[in-house]
Amino acid sequence: MARWEPDAQGRLQQAAMELFAERGYAEVTVAEIADRAGLTKRTFFNHFADKREVLFAGAKDFEDSVVAHLSEADSDLAPVDAALHALTRAGQGLAAYGDYARARQALIASSPELQERDLIKTASLTSAIAQALRRRGVPASTSTLAAQAATAVFTAAYGDWISDTAGDLHTRTQRSLHDLRSALSHTPDVDK
Amino acid sequence: MARWEPDAQGRLQQAAMELFAERGYAEVTVAEIADRAGLTKRTFFNHFADKREVLFAGAKDFEDSVVAHLSEADSDLAPVDAALHALTRAGQGLAAYGDYARARQALIASSPELQERDLIKTASLTSAIAQALRRRGVPASTSTLAAQAATAVFTAAYGDWISDTAGDLHTRTQRSLHDLRSALSHTPDVDK
Repeated sequence: MARWEPDAQGRLQQAAMELFAERGYAEVTVAEIADRAGLTKRTFFNHFADKREVLFAGAKDFEDSVVAHLSEADSDLAPVDAALHALTRAGQGLAAYGDYARARQALIASSPELQERDLIKTASLTSAIAQALRRRGVPASTSTLAAQAATAVFTAAYGDWISDTAGDLHTRTQRSLHDLRSALSHTPDVDK
Repeated sequence: MARWEPDAQGRLQQAAMELFAERGYAEVTVAEIADRAGLTKRTFFNHFADKREVLFAGAKDFEDSVVAHLSEADSDLAPVDAALHALTRAGQGLAAYGDYARARQALIASSPELQERDLIKTASLTSAIAQALRRRGVPASTSTLAAQAATAVFTAAYGDWISDTAGDLHTRTQRSLHDLRSALSHTPDVDK
């Protein structure tokens, strides 16, 4: 970030959220976001690859944090538990951004192109978790499934949590994990 | 489909696969696909919304078939088992397209924009399964997790299967389901 633009990224994010709230995601241009932030379009594109990215600025940091926590998780945890431990730890810090998180989720729900970007970020997170699990010695076939299960459980819990951040992310994660386990329980072998 | 263009969709799909194999997905234009098929660009866009869709023409039929099989699955099956039963049944017919499926998977793996479209189709399938599970009386929170788990298990099994269709999709699905269960097993409550 250039020295003469203190927190340009933060100003652009705030301007974008204001404009999206006022007129809806689809109606707002990058030029308008830059203008509201008192910056140029060129500066916007120095910070974000496109308009959608302004809502996913934290995704890479979150992913890196999950991977770091996963490398430190107890080696005797089952793969899904280890991944959920890491996701929950990385997610703790997000409580401070409750209002932003709620507004952001509502925007994503309002726009197919934001939902697409969200899917891509989730796929990237899942793939990073699967890789980190393989580094813990989890077999390749299991690592992908475990990462997908953990991400699904965490996403469900996080969705509940941001609608009421008074609760505890860890507790909600355990509740969603319980839901998944019960959906997998009592298995007569599936008939052919 | 217009009467004077018998199987235009099939000709376009075949022309696209040939051209993608010859020059790579990214290098081929819609005009070239139409030309190879002896049809016009306009006809292409009557059948497919964009170049990517030519590789996902069967997705909606597959989704509808899964939902139909799910509505007929035994009512005492656990949610994930019921969803896997439906996915496996709908997937049986795909064995005849082994060569096509392999070429298609390789193309998707080669292109980020095809991977994105694949994520979107999988999300649509997952959402349709979750809805069908809710119609079976599965609670909303569990239905989404069950649909995600079933789709993940099926995708893993299907990936194995198309690399060697001599095997049996049902058996591979059960093996992936076992992998997921073991990734979820031995749970000391995750430490905070």
